[in-house]
This record gives sequence, structure tokens and C-alpha cells, in this order.
Amino acid sequence: MNQVVARSVIRRLINSQKSPISTFRSHDDIAITNRQRLGIIGGGARVLGTRMMSAEGGDEAAKENKVSVTSYWGVARPKVKREDGSDWPWNCFMPWETYQADVSIDLKKHHKPKGFLDKVAYKTVKILRLPTDILFKRRYGCRAMMLETVAAVPGMVGGMLLHLKSLRKFQHSGGWIKALLEEAENERMHLMTMVELVQPKWHERLLVLAVQGVFFNAFFVLYILSPKLAHRIVGYLEEEAIHSYTEYLKDIDRGLIENVPAPAISIDYWRLPQDAKLRDVILVIRADEAHHRDVNHFASDIHFEGKELRDAPAPLGYH
Amino acid sequence: MNQVVARSVIRRLINSQKSPISTFRSHDDIAITNRQRLGIIGGGARVLGTRMMSAEGGDEAAKENKVSVTSYWGVARPKVKREDGSDWPWNCFMPWETYQADVSIDLKKHHKPKGFLDKVAYKTVKILRLPTDILFKRRYGCRAMMLETVAAVPGMVGGMLLHLKSLRKFQHSGGWIKALLEEAENERMHLMTMVELVQPKWHERLLVLAVQGVFFNAFFVLYILSPKLAHRIVGYLEEEAIHSYTEYLKDIDRGLIENVPAPAISIDYWRLPQDAKLRDVILVIRADEAHHRDVNHFASDIHFEGKELRDAPAPLGYH
Repeated sequence: MNQVVARSVIRRLINSQKSPISTFRSHDDIAITNRQRLGIIGGGARVLGTRMMSAEGGDEAAKENKVSVTSYWGVARPKVKREDGSDWPWNCFMPWETYQADVSIDLKKHHKPKGFLDKVAYKTVKILRLPTDILFKRRYGCRAMMLETVAAVPGMVGGMLLHLKSLRKFQHSGGWIKALLEEAENERMHLMTMVELVQPKWHERLLVLAVQGVFFNAFFVLYILSPKLAHRIVGYLEEEAIHSYTEYLKDIDRGLIENVPAPAISIDYWRLPQDAKLRDVILVIRADEAHHRDVNHFASDIHFEGKELRDAPAPLGYH
Repeated sequence: MNQVVARSVIRRLINSQKSPISTFRSHDDIAITNRQRLGIIGGGARVLGTRMMSAEGGDEAAKENKVSVTSYWGVARPKVKREDGSDWPWNCFMPWETYQADVSIDLKKHHKPKGFLDKVAYKTVKILRLPTDILFKRRYGCRAMMLETVAAVPGMVGGMLLHLKSLRKFQHSGGWIKALLEEAENERMHLMTMVELVQPKWHERLLVLAVQGVFFNAFFVLYILSPKLAHRIVGYLEEEAIHSYTEYLKDIDRGLIENVPAPAISIDYWRLPQDAKLRDVILVIRADEAHHRDVNHFASDIHFEGKELRDAPAPLGYH
């Protein structure tokens, strides 16, 4: 929240000056501007971005350069650097999208199935859990990785359908499009983290292909028919995810799973200390799932009240 | 760009303090924290966010309150206020998502159709233009509104398909998922602006319904079959959009279209002066379309080079 506020404040602060630089063109000006900004906020930040004229630094930059050169359009993402001068190594997320998860969130929160739809949602999730229990048993690394390939689907489907609805009805979304897309993005980052820890085997890749094909279409249809039920199911799925990650943590504490160093991507994404371990990563991922649980049960509650999501401003940046 | 840098800097600055507040719960703490932030950056910002305990201020807040009260989950978006104390009236976009469009962008840039696919893309767009010419002639307000309901589809479809691909292949997207979703978001904001100027008639709403149904599915299939062709078509569509908005401006200058005051939403979204007129709005919308033209032709070029989008970091925040 405080990040969010500061973000708006600093952006206004800058733009109130009507700076002519709003694209990635005049590199020198931008470099100067950055220093001015640092001056304004007194430094102390761990990351500062500067666009580089030439693209040194790693394959990615080389590729970018190659493409840019052959491209007539000369559009590119700005090169972002850490304070220590090292390149920001990720393109799938930027420093200002990183955050510290609120691990103090109540993990026990549970929505008691009330009406018929609630019970359907609850049973569905319990049934969906069976095959994963049989398939993976206590291989939680593998299990988590596979489940994240599914967990990133509902947010994207919901966000897209709300987007299309907003266009059809000439209506605002109340921020829910963004909130659901944020969820999808976050779940994808979980996957990008897990894949650093567990390399999927060919038959697992095949399984993901099949599962996505079925689940995407099923959830797509479900969300059109009953967003109320769809969000409730996701809420319960997230409750199961919290359970799985809790079991994961138990196995780490028991020494059944080695508490390896955290992948570099997770250290940057959740702003973990450099010496963070797998345990720390699972803790923040579990906290993320708990936040998604809240958002989706909340969304379902809004529908149960006979309202539309747009009637309740979306909880943006809730993590 | 400079906004982007400052955003990362200020967020790092704040989070290096490991503030315990990363959800919207402890309101008082947040209020205090905001003031601290303002202290840090020396004030001067036009917007500052404070979460309110009670939801005064307009229907929206009242609705939010009603839903929150009946909700067990207690998640909500923070109430954001302007410096003048007035509530931030929009939920579909936040102050830190607003920007100043680069109206200096080259509007004449055109991708000469080279190969067969380019020619197919070019002809397709020229053919697609015919019905709109016949249907709307020089009623550019109505025309723009209807076209924006279509223009917001490709970004969402592309972003979603790249998201699903990223999950299936356990691969990073190079930031392209976000870049394409940003485009969809921006086009939706164009629609939300135009709808303030032109109220769609029932038969136009019906037309949008039909067009979206056809276009969404057609583009979905096209993007799966040939993202190369899909991005090229969008590139050319944007070139046509630039042309339409240029004609729109001509009619305003000729006095055929009244240069009414800019809608409130456009003044906040593009940070226009309070006395901005319709003409100013069309100028920034046209600049947006020019940026989307660049991004999509660039994306198509990457594919034409036999590369994947992920090989070239996406131009995030390019507007």
C-alpha cells in the first residue's frame, strides 16, 4: 500500500514538471533525468534505471541489439541496472513490480460452504485434488510446479472476459480486469521460480499440455456461465494450495527436502535477502496464495450479493 | 522512461525499510506511512493516496462500503485522494498508471509490404476498412468509439496466448505478455473516453456484440496460426487508426465537429490541463495508436527474422 502511494506521488511529482521525455528515445536526457530524480528523492534506492546507448551485458542484450538493428521501429525496453551497476537480468518483471509478501496473513481462513453452489465448488476442488495426490504423493516440488501451470489460468481467463465485457457494455471494470491479470502474472512468477528448482520431465510437459487444454476451456465456459462459482472454486483451490505448501514446508523442516539456496529470480521478485533459502521462497509463495484466496472468495461473495464485481473497487496490489 | 525509473527507485527506497504494511489492513499505520513518504520525497506531488476508514465520497465508495461490510474477506482497493482532498474518482486506472503521451512521434511511419504475408495483411486491413467507411462516413466520433471496441481485442488475445505458452513451455515471455496487455488496457481507456463523448445507440451496441464475437475468435485463431501475420495486421490497423484520427482533427479544425471540453477521465488519464478540449484528447489518442503501430510492426519483424518475441525484450511503458 505504502509502495502504491509513493509510486503515485513520485510519478505525479515527475510529471508535474511536464518532462519532454516520455518515450525511450533521447537517451542522454533520460540519463540526466534519472540523476535528477535520485537527487529529488535523496538516493538510497537499491535500483536505478538507465537506458544504454549500446547493448552490452549478456545474451539478452545482444539479442535485443540484433533485433533492434534489423528493426525499422527502434522500440525497445529500457535497460535497467541495479545500484551495484549490474544489469537487471529479468525481462518478465521489472524492479517496480517486485514486492515483499505479507507472510503474516491468516492462513487458516476458510469459507464455509453455504449454499448449493458453494458445496459444488468445494466438492469439485476436493475431487480435483485426488489425481494430484495419487500422481505426486509427497513430491511437493514437482507437485507445486505442475499446479502453478494451472493456477495461472483462472486470473487470465477472468481478466480477459471482464475486458471483453467492458468493451461490449461500454462500462468500467472497477479495476477488476487488472486485479485478475495481476493474479495470473503472480502465479506465472511462482512457476518461473519452481522451474528453477525442479526441471520438468518430458512426460510432465506433455501432461501440462493436456491439462491446460482441458482446464483453460473448462474454466472459460464456467466463468461465462457462473463467475460466482468460478471465483469460489479458485478460492478453494487456493486453500488447497496453502495446504500443499504447508506440507512442503513440513518436509523441508523434517529434512526430507533439501533447503537449497533460493533461485535468483525469487530473490529479486520478492526482495528476499541474498542468502535466502528454499524455505523462505515457499513461505512467500504460500502467502501469495492466501491473498489470492481472499480476493477470489471476496469476488464470489460480491456475486452472491447479486452485485457485479465493478460495484466493489478491486483490491489492486493486494499481496 | 524517467517515470519508470523513479517508480523503481521510490519503491526500492520504501521497501528497503521493510515496512510491515504491505496489505490494506492497518489503516492508521498506512496513513502515517504516507506522510512519511511525502516527507522523504519532499512533497510537491499532485496526488497522494490515503486509505479511508469509512467510505464517504460518492456512489462508488458507498457501494464499496456495502460490499466490504458484508464481506468476510475485508480486501479492498485503497482510497486514493488528490492533493486538493478530492477522491480519486476512477477505479479502472490509478494515478501511477497515467502518463503524458509523446505527441511528437512520427505519424507518417509506414511499413512497406514486403513479402506475401505483408501484402495479405495490408489488403486485409484495406478491405476491413470498407464497411466502416460505408457505415460511418465522416461521423468520426461514432467511428472511433466503435473501432476502439475492436482495437482493444488483439492485445488481450496476444497477451493471453503468450501467457499460456509461457506456462506450457516453462519459459519467460521477455515482458511481451505485459506489453500486449498494456496495449489492450490503453485501447480500452480510449473507448472509455470516447463513450463520454458519444453515447452508443442500441443498434450500435448490437453491432459491437456481433463484431466482437467474430473478431475475437478470428484473431484468436489467426494468432495461433501466425503471430507474424497477426501483429502485422494490427500494425496496419493502427496506421488506419492514425489516418482516421487525423481526419477527425481536420473536421474539428473545420468546425464540422464541435471542439467540446475534454471528458474528465481523459484529463486524468493523459494528465491534460483542466481546460483541455476534444482536440487535445484526439491528439494523444492518435499518438497512442502510433506507438501501438510501432510495437506491433516491431513484433512482426521479430517473427519475420525467425525469432520469438521473447528474444527481444518488450518495450514496456512505450507511449
